[in-house]
This record gives sequence, C-alpha cells and structure tokens, in this order.
Amino acid sequence: MKIELYDTTLRDGAGGLGISYSTQDKTEIFNLLDDYGIDLIEGGYPSANPKDTSFFENVNSDKLVAFCSTRKADAESKNDTGLLGTLKHTKKVVCIFGKTSKIAAEKILKTSAENNLKMIYDSVKLFTGNGKRVIFDAEHFFDSYKADRDYAIKALRAAADAGADTLVLCDSNGGTFPSVIGKTTNEIVRLFPKQKIGIHAHNDVGMAIASSIMAVENGASHIQGTFLGFGERSGNANLAIIIANLKLKTDYEVDVKLADTTKTGRKIAEISNVTLDNSMPYIGKSAFMHKAGTHADAAAKGLPFEHINPEAVGNTTDVLLSEYSGKALIIEKLKSMFPSFDESKITAKDLLTSLKNLELEGYQFEGADGSFKILAQKLGGSFKPSFEILDYTFTSHKQEQGDTGLSKAVITIKANGKTVTVEKDGNGPVNALDSALRFALVSQFPKLKAVTLIDYKVRVIDSKSATGATVRVLITSSDGASTWTTVGVSTDILEASLTALCDSFEYKLSFLD
Amino acid sequence: MKIELYDTTLRDGAGGLGISYSTQDKTEIFNLLDDYGIDLIEGGYPSANPKDTSFFENVNSDKLVAFCSTRKADAESKNDTGLLGTLKHTKKVVCIFGKTSKIAAEKILKTSAENNLKMIYDSVKLFTGNGKRVIFDAEHFFDSYKADRDYAIKALRAAADAGADTLVLCDSNGGTFPSVIGKTTNEIVRLFPKQKIGIHAHNDVGMAIASSIMAVENGASHIQGTFLGFGERSGNANLAIIIANLKLKTDYEVDVKLADTTKTGRKIAEISNVTLDNSMPYIGKSAFMHKAGTHADAAAKGLPFEHINPEAVGNTTDVLLSEYSGKALIIEKLKSMFPSFDESKITAKDLLTSLKNLELEGYQFEGADGSFKILAQKLGGSFKPSFEILDYTFTSHKQEQGDTGLSKAVITIKANGKTVTVEKDGNGPVNALDSALRFALVSQFPKLKAVTLIDYKVRVIDSKSATGATVRVLITSSDGASTWTTVGVSTDILEASLTALCDSFEYKLSFLD
Repeated sequence: MKIELYDTTLRDGAGGLGISYSTQDKTEIFNLLDDYGIDLIEGGYPSANPKDTSFFENVNSDKLVAFCSTRKADAESKNDTGLLGTLKHTKKVVCIFGKTSKIAAEKILKTSAENNLKMIYDSVKLFTGNGKRVIFDAEHFFDSYKADRDYAIKALRAAADAGADTLVLCDSNGGTFPSVIGKTTNEIVRLFPKQKIGIHAHNDVGMAIASSIMAVENGASHIQGTFLGFGERSGNANLAIIIANLKLKTDYEVDVKLADTTKTGRKIAEISNVTLDNSMPYIGKSAFMHKAGTHADAAAKGLPFEHINPEAVGNTTDVLLSEYSGKALIIEKLKSMFPSFDESKITAKDLLTSLKNLELEGYQFEGADGSFKILAQKLGGSFKPSFEILDYTFTSHKQEQGDTGLSKAVITIKANGKTVTVEKDGNGPVNALDSALRFALVSQFPKLKAVTLIDYKVRVIDSKSATGATVRVLITSSDGASTWTTVGVSTDILEASLTALCDSFEYKLSFLD
Repeated sequence: MKIELYDTTLRDGAGGLGISYSTQDKTEIFNLLDDYGIDLIEGGYPSANPKDTSFFENVNSDKLVAFCSTRKADAESKNDTGLLGTLKHTKKVVCIFGKTSKIAAEKILKTSAENNLKMIYDSVKLFTGNGKRVIFDAEHFFDSYKADRDYAIKALRAAADAGADTLVLCDSNGGTFPSVIGKTTNEIVRLFPKQKIGIHAHNDVGMAIASSIMAVENGASHIQGTFLGFGERSGNANLAIIIANLKLKTDYEVDVKLADTTKTGRKIAEISNVTLDNSMPYIGKSAFMHKAGTHADAAAKGLPFEHINPEAVGNTTDVLLSEYSGKALIIEKLKSMFPSFDESKITAKDLLTSLKNLELEGYQFEGADGSFKILAQKLGGSFKPSFEILDYTFTSHKQEQGDTGLSKAVITIKANGKTVTVEKDGNGPVNALDSALRFALVSQFPKLKAVTLIDYKVRVIDSKSATGATVRVLITSSDGASTWTTVGVSTDILEASLTALCDSFEYKLSFLD
C-alpha cells in the first residue's frame, strides 16, 4: 500500500522553541522536502499571516498545501473572509481543521455542537465545490472519540459528506498510547472505506513515531508529521524516522530519496538554526556510533549492533574515540578517514596517547573531525603547517551607545617564507582576531577567501571555575561545498578561538580544493 | 500489576556521546535514582573496570545491581575470574547477559550453540547457588527469536532452569517495531509463567518508549531503561517518560516520587554534562510551553493542549513570549512571575513592543527568564539598577606555552554612591572582566560572593557575518539554592558577556536573598 507523506514543518514545526522562519527559509525548506519526495507540504495559513501570504504567492507547486480552520460560527462559507482568502491561495490541496467534540464546539467556538458539524460540512464544501482536494484534520480526535464516540464520528462524516477525501485523526495533545491509536484507527478505517485515513501525532508521551506506525499497521495511508519532529511542546511525529522505518522495515510504499535522509535533515536543521540531537535515529551524528566495548567489539567482528546499513539513509558508521577505545578501533577509524593510511608511519598507540592527553586538557574530538584529521596527520609526520602565528595583541574598550569597532587586533603570521603583520578593528575581540588572521592568510592563500564561519560555540568545561574555567570552542566552517568542525581549548576564550580558527584554515588548505 | 523499574544510566547510559562518569558522578546519580524510587540500579561491571570496582565498594545498597556476561566458553563457572569477581561485589542482585542465537555463539563467542546454553546455565547457577537473585538479559532476543525461535527460547530456558527469576527480552540493536515486541512478549509471558518477563529496548527506530509500554501491555513486569534515555547510538528507552506514562495513564503500579521527575531528570542531566532536549516529554523546558496562536488561545480558555497537569511531574506550563504572543498571554506570564503584578503600572503593550525590538536585535528571552524579569521591572518603573559600569578597558597578548594571565581588565563601577576601580588579570578576557567586576561588586554587595557561573553559552545569530556576526551570550548562574539565566547580545562577545553578567548580578540583588 502506498503511504502519502504530509509534512508540516513550515507550520506546526515553526511552533518549536527557538524556531522562526523567514520567507526565504520556508522556500529553502520547501525545496528540500519537495526534492526528497514528500508528497504534500503544508505552507501555513495563507490568509491569516502576511509572511505566509507572500510565501504562497512565491511558490508554484501543486504539493503546497494551504491550511485553515473551519468557517466562523456565524458566517456563511461563501462570505467567510478567512476561507475565501485561503481558497484564493490554494493550489490543488487544502487542509481544514475542525473540532470533533461538543465541548470544544461550545467552549472554544462558542457555538452549538450541531452548528460545528455544519461548519465542517460548509467549509469543506466550499473547497470541493471549487475543485480542490480537501484533507480534513480532525482535531483532538482520539480524546473526542473516547469521550463521545458518536459525535466524533459525526464530525468525520460531515467532512466526508462534503467531499473531503482524506480524514486525518489528530492526537492533538499527544497523550494517547499507540495501542489505542491502532485500535481506533482500525475502527475508523472500517467506517470510512472510501476515504483515505490519516494520522497526525504529537510527541507528548514520547511515542509519536510509534503511534504513526501503528496507525499505518491498522490501515491509515496518510501520515502528517514534521521532517525532524519539530513542533510545539515535545514536537510532532518525526517524519524522517517514520519514512526510514517504513521503507527499510516494511512493505508499505513510500517514494522518497532515502539516501538523502541525513543530508536533507541536517540542512533543514541548519536553516532552522536548531542543533540536531546527536542521538536522533537514522540522522543523528551518533545514530551509528559505537563506544562501549562489547558493542564496538561485535561491530569489529562483523556482527554490528546496527539495525540497518547506515548508507541507506546517507549516514555513516562511526567509531567513537575515547578512553575506552582499543587500538583496533582507532586504526579502523583512521582507515575510514584516510584510505591510504599507512600503519607503519603512525602507531595508533601514539595517537591514543595523544588523544587521551588532549582529552584530559578538555579537548573532545567527537564533534570535531576537522581537528582530528589534522592531529592524525601531525602524529603521522605528514602534516606541514601552512602558516605560523608569531604574535598577536589586542585591546578593547567600553563602547559608547551605538559605537562599534573599539576592539583592535594586531597579528603577525609567517607563511610562504614571508612575515605578514596585519592590524584590524573588529566587532569584538574574536572578530578582530579573525579579521586580522583572515586578511593575512588570504594574502598568501587566495582560496581561503571561500571559507566562512557558520557556527561558533563555547562550552564551559569546568564550570566550578566560572569564567576562569577552561572553555572549549567549536567552530564550524564552510566553503560552500563542505563543512567541517574544529576545536580549541584554553582558559582564554581568545586562545581557544584562535586555535580552532587556525585548524579551520589549515583544514581547508590541507584537505579541500 | 506492579512494574519493576531497572535503571542502567550508569552503564548503558554512560555509552552516550560525550558522557563520562567519575565515581563521584555515579554516586550522585545513584542517590538521585534511589531517592526517586527506582527499584534496581545497575552500577556497571564491578570486576572488569577499576572505576566500577571502587564504585561498588563505596555503595551500600541492595538496589545496586552488578552486571556481567556469561562465563568464558572454556572455563568452569567456579573458576571463571570474571564471574567470581562479579560475585564478590554482588549485593543481592546480578544481571547476567548472554547470547540467544547460534550465530552469535559461533561468531562472537567462538563456541558451539550447545555450549552457549551451558554457559548461560552455569553462570546463572553460580549466583543462584550463592543466594543471589539473577536477572538474565537475553541479548538480541527479538532478532534471535525471528531467526530461530526454538534456540532463542532454549537460551531463556537455560537461564530459568538455573534459577533466574527474571528474563529480560533485549532489543539490542533497537530495530524492532512495538507491534512485534508486543506480540513476542505475549508469547514469552505464556511460555514462562513462573518468571518475571522484562523488556530492554534501544531507540534506533525512535520507538523504545512505545516498545517498553507495549511489552508491559502484553504482560512484561520489569522494564530496563535509562532515566533520560541516554545510551549509545540513539539511546536506550527513556525510563522517566515510561514511568510518567504508566503512572498517569494506566493502572499499572509504579512506586516513585512522580512530582520529582523533572527535578531528578534535570539534576542527572547536569551531572552528566548533557544539555537536556527542550522538547523531552514531561521533563523538557518546552514540554508544556505554548507558542502557536490556536493552542495558546485554547490554553487561555481553559482547554489546554496539555495531556496532563505539568505539576504532576514537577514541571510547569509556560507561555512562550514571541512575536506571535498576544497581550493576554504576556499579562498571564507576568502574573505568574510577579504575583503582585500591577497592570496599571506597566502595560503589556509596552513590554511587547520592547520585546519585539529586542528580539529584532537578537535577544531571545525564551531561555532567559532572569533577564526577562529585570526587563519587566525596568518597564514597570520599579527597577533601580544597583550599580553602573562607567568604563572598562582590557588588553591581551599571545600567550607563551604554559603561560596564562596575559589578559588584563580595568573596570570602573559606581555603586552605593561610590566609584570603584578594579584591575584584574584573568585567564582570557571574559574571565578578566568577570573577575574585576565581581571583585568591585562584592566590595559593595557581600551577598554576591555566593554567585557562581555554571554555564556560559555563545550562539552566533547571523552566521553569514562570521565572527563579525551578532552573538548572543547566555549565562547561567547559581547561588547554591537557585539558578537563573541571563542574556546579552552584541557584535562584541565581551559586551554581550558583560550585559549578561551584569543582569546576573542584578538578578541576585533584586530577586534573591
């Protein structure tokens, strides 16, 4: 059975803590989801939110779904400005959400239960009468069904009678168990044999993925979720994980570019300015990472503790280097990084010793493969630094209101046999330092012009020492084609930043075109 | 039915990316779990890891469970040093894991399938013969059961025959669907009516919580997990969420201090140096947070999109202030923060306007209630700054190997009518600035001595400007009793840090004893 995939990252996902999409962000995410193979992509409320309106005006795709509620309690559909505005922006498909319990009709809509059914019917009819496909989102369906089964079904019936071809059972407050979702879905599928039944789950009891799968196992053929599980409170059902589960472990048909799952997810996270959970199934950095002895050992013996081949979703197996790592694993990791790795030139034991010492200082290479590669080359003796920092000084003063540029850095580097000194102002010391270093380096290595810093993170390691504590700086850089992360550790945030910056530039010079 | 809760944060959880526990950490986590009401707490391999040995020697509790594998293929149990070492440190309960498939016996243990069964029997027998309770962890059980049902059951039978009273079905690679877990558990429960059947799920398909619940719904009465879901790859089943689900939504008995769930979880995260996922069900900061209009509106109308009362797990409802917030919500939030809030003194509209302007600059108060409270007081006219920064200057130079203290800050403040100038060296500029400011302030406000910085985070906001971008600094401070977070935004990381530091001290002076 073909399963229809419906993503609502751009609306429900935007309710997540810290997420706020510009029109440009929305367009980029839309394109990523479209290209990946999502069937329907909800874009928001085109008639209620000016940002959403301009987005709908700019996207030309039948996959774009408009979203709105049922008409006002006291209007007629043909006069309801909200519905008419939505209709105007609807390409082929609209998703209308409506109430499914008497209490919601009375308390939230301030109308009668009977009128709510009429509102559903009328609203759906306006769109089907205009040739649009209507998906009906039955809000709080599982709670309503439990409290008053007959009325909940009447709400679905009203939508179906008006021509909605898809009835989506929403667990709006996310509190229903998968077993109940499965059983209820099964009953609704039997009651509505002509409609597609969908599931829309929230993650408040941590089971949104399972609930969606359980619904499918019981006859649902339309899944609403957000690609990375973004959403209010504990988020929506994570569509990427559901897709990978269905595609790799069942016979249900989902038509996506599965090998792009990791890439697509990470790009969406980046656009959303959200740090992706390392442990996110399939996509996360550690999803296929091994650390504990037994598991890693089994992996090395060819019986991995892995439920799928990571390549299927575009992720990679990673062996975590840590104090628990044995020599075999380090060699394995080096070989995966450097196909031409020569064991005779560098012993894993040296690397392990260096790693352990650096980890004691506060380094962590788990998240900084860029610096790890440089370190491995250093120990292998095949690394020649491209430049050297001979000296730096900087100063900063209190800024007056609106003033900037009171930080000044003077840096002296040696590269290509030349000594170059650069003085630069900056918006703060890290920027001044970065500007001066970058200017000096670009004069010697033009290809560094392409390198930009895309993330800068600081973590206090020994928090008991407060601002005097050792800090770890992680810098993520990009040249447009690749991104890499480097690390620096010091009690001085500037030293740490400088170390990470230098590694970042060295990485580009050593490993990239 | 009473459900036995078994936590393995200290072993399986320690396999999580970035987690490394000292003996002190383990003891603190043990005590938290014990106090919360977890029945059994696994402490690690007492005979295989020196750190674990010292932990076992220092904890005196019958809840502490030792962990080990079955005996070596070619040893007798009574001579197996691993088993004997474990036995020596076993209080009342041991958990022994063993292989459940022929291929694992042959490939990993390099022994015969027949001998593997004997190893299970012998190993369990050594402990039951010595009066210990044995829990048998059947590794890869669901995969083994699928591949060779008879052998998998024989492995359980061997453990049961030797006296293991609990047989735990492990989905070791985390790839099994809840529906299959439920069905299989049901069959095993029938086959072993005298034994307690347990579930041990990993989260590789994002359904470990659901799988655990499904197992319980099918007769399992022992759940293994980690309190916050920590663990290798995508983690283990999140025990806290499972507990809250069972306690609040089923009739199964779990005997814990449910209202301590949030507190316990956050403390464990802190000890583990892990930033807790905001969206974690029940415990996360945003688990009960409302932002999107409709949901927040329903909440305000007394029909919250909340599946439980957050107080049940010690969490709170929070209304997220953002560009989408209406006036009513802001007033509600202010009232929750300031019970004596007087609407006549400050209009929510002023606050909203200020919030929006500050958010445009890059401020985000979602995570910084400390700064928000100060802002609200400022706008209400009831805030009097306790001190003022008149000037600062600092300088820094390249450090020589091993050198520190080359950053120097001079700061002048005005407080209590006095002007105080302090010069301090520091490990880097933020530290120098912090030291100087702190020294100056403590001379005027002795109670600030108790304030320490416990976390310091920097986020690049407009990443396209690289290190010249606006940065947001979040500082979390503690005085031992309370913790609070403040925010500063600037293109200069020092300015941003200083703003957040000043707010942090002001917060202590204004709102805490």
